[in-house]
Amino acid sequence: KEKIIIGVVGGDGIGPFITAEAKRVLAFLLSEDIKKGRIIFKEIDGLTIENRAACGKAIPDDVLAELKSCDVILKGPTTTPREGDQWPNIESANVAMRRELDLFANVRPVSVPEKGIDWTFYRENTEGAYAIGSKGIHVNEDLAIDFTVTTQEGSDRIIKAAFDYAEKSGKNKVTVVTKANVIKTTDGKFLDAAKAIAKNYPTVEMDDWYIDIMTAKLVDEKRRSQFKVMVLPNLYGDILTDEAAEFQGGVGTAGSANIGKQYAMFEAVHGSAPRMVAEGRGQYADPCSIIRGAGMLLGHIGYQEKADQLQKALDICGLYEKKLVLTGRDTGATGAEYADYVMETLSHPNLDESY
Amino acid sequence: KEKIIIGVVGGDGIGPFITAEAKRVLAFLLSEDIKKGRIIFKEIDGLTIENRAACGKAIPDDVLAELKSCDVILKGPTTTPREGDQWPNIESANVAMRRELDLFANVRPVSVPEKGIDWTFYRENTEGAYAIGSKGIHVNEDLAIDFTVTTQEGSDRIIKAAFDYAEKSGKNKVTVVTKANVIKTTDGKFLDAAKAIAKNYPTVEMDDWYIDIMTAKLVDEKRRSQFKVMVLPNLYGDILTDEAAEFQGGVGTAGSANIGKQYAMFEAVHGSAPRMVAEGRGQYADPCSIIRGAGMLLGHIGYQEKADQLQKALDICGLYEKKLVLTGRDTGATGAEYADYVMETLSHPNLDESY
Ligand SMILES: CC(C)[C@H](C(=O)O)[C@@H](O)C(=O)O
Ligand SMILES: CC(C)[C@H](C(=O)O)[C@@H](O)C(=O)O
Repeated sequence: KEKIIIGVVGGDGIGPFITAEAKRVLAFLLSEDIKKGRIIFKEIDGLTIENRAACGKAIPDDVLAELKSCDVILKGPTTTPREGDQWPNIESANVAMRRELDLFANVRPVSVPEKGIDWTFYRENTEGAYAIGSKGIHVNEDLAIDFTVTTQEGSDRIIKAAFDYAEKSGKNKVTVVTKANVIKTTDGKFLDAAKAIAKNYPTVEMDDWYIDIMTAKLVDEKRRSQFKVMVLPNLYGDILTDEAAEFQGGVGTAGSANIGKQYAMFEAVHGSAPRMVAEGRGQYADPCSIIRGAGMLLGHIGYQEKADQLQKALDICGLYEKKLVLTGRDTGATGAEYADYVMETLSHPNLDESY
Repeated sequence: KEKIIIGVVGGDGIGPFITAEAKRVLAFLLSEDIKKGRIIFKEIDGLTIENRAACGKAIPDDVLAELKSCDVILKGPTTTPREGDQWPNIESANVAMRRELDLFANVRPVSVPEKGIDWTFYRENTEGAYAIGSKGIHVNEDLAIDFTVTTQEGSDRIIKAAFDYAEKSGKNKVTVVTKANVIKTTDGKFLDAAKAIAKNYPTVEMDDWYIDIMTAKLVDEKRRSQFKVMVLPNLYGDILTDEAAEFQGGVGTAGSANIGKQYAMFEAVHGSAPRMVAEGRGQYADPCSIIRGAGMLLGHIGYQEKADQLQKALDICGLYEKKLVLTGRDTGATGAEYADYVMETLSHPNLDESY
């Protein structure tokens, strides 16, 4: 593509703080192509909970139009209102964006080399228990019903994406995680789809586990390194990736790629932490997770080498981060200082050998 | 009650092996009251996958009648057939029994004193994502739908059970785990029910977390001891208790109590391991989990002191068990030898001080 438009969505709470730092790192790495006009940043400001409450929609119409004018999106966390909160009952902006832009693959890597952990999760991102959003039914005062929806196409495309990656990366193993022994109709469909698709990938081994025992297996230090690529329906992906990120240092350290045929969105895995901002500590919010997201964005738009460099720099800074946590992060670096440190590390002449 | 009938259900695979050992331990502890005719064991043999397949029901009618003639049930694991297996598509016997006997509270304690872990999970056991069993809808070849059902009464009774326990035990804290930011209708109802009930327990603190981040929090060694009593909808309870049990040594070490107004059933948390039996290693199956279940049964029918003694003996034997695992369990003790060891430990004159 001649021109790539990167939409930058601040979101709520600490979102604008950390997104600004991630953008700074991207601008640093892409400075040449920005000068050439090949990369264009577009700030999209309106995705705030106040605006969403005012129009009663998870994504205001004008924001959606702006999002659709971009090629890729870097997105800060958004706050999900809840019944009983001060906000009306609106769907999560996150969930709505994944569906509206048809971002069917939520890809989340978790890597802890010293523990032998190198996992990549392919989470189905548009259906399952998330399909109908907040449109469940209060049949009467006593009875509430929600729906889980699984389609053949929706299952096939995410499962294929996982097998393609397993094949290309040489990891050659895909683990399918469902609860098909109980949620037989929808999860059974997902598992059957995986078994059928696996036949087209003779070099890729497939196994399957139930989500309950899978959460235990990730804890098992002796056996968890057997897992490589995992593919899961939406809700199990949500659950298992948070647990997995904890072994890497917490959800604050994991990036998340939301990829569709036409659009792609990259984000932090953690929430908007409104309390931090209310207490005036927004500038101390850790931008590590969204910078990881920015790294995945770089790879997606064709800058794989720069993505790898950023990954390396973040791994090095991660060691420094752990020190910050031990000494009490709040008295430590601001997000801007952390981003500076990442850029310094990126500029280090020995970056390639130092790791 | 003058007479207590304990139904003993072997189940499938390793079930009959381990259940026999748990029964032996119970008979040892209750020998006096068995002689007096106060405790009666009733063997219930028909809950096998072959019988279930033959009649096309998760629980054959005659077995259900036998179950209902007991006061409490000790149950070995059962195999759940799956589409594509050699068996027809029948619901899990486990799930069916919980519903047919209205065993609404699935209580699972996980305790690892040296790690500061002392958790008790109250899992809703009859509704949620398990409510309609395998009766989801294949709308057409492309579209499958499952249902999640939450009722006011179903939520209230499990939440009250958790708060009652938190109050009585002096733990004074209940953590509610849902995904109410996305599964707003049913999980929102569950969370609202908890908030309303909490008002009646002024000495019990309540907090709530989403299931995704909760799986990460259990991993966090510094902060997980803050959790005491957790109450969760069915599916999240299924998932989180398997993860939690792993910190104690795996699902093989956790017992599970299924408690209703009229009946109660106690079981192992793990599966039926048909492969072990096929390979002729059934007698090596570890009866630890079902013996923990038997301990919970003892407490339930009024033998709290004996339940505590068994708990202690199992904790001591657990240390021995860990050694077995390290040296390769399969070449280690049989289930019968393990049960013997538990009974020896129970008979030790210093049991009360030794711990
Ligand atoms: C914020 C929430 C709606 C979201 C989800 O449930 O998908 C988050 O937990 C995630 O994993 O990105
Ligand atoms: C065997 C299966 C149906 C069961 C469940 O999902 O409840 C098991 O995982 C459990 O936790 O007791």
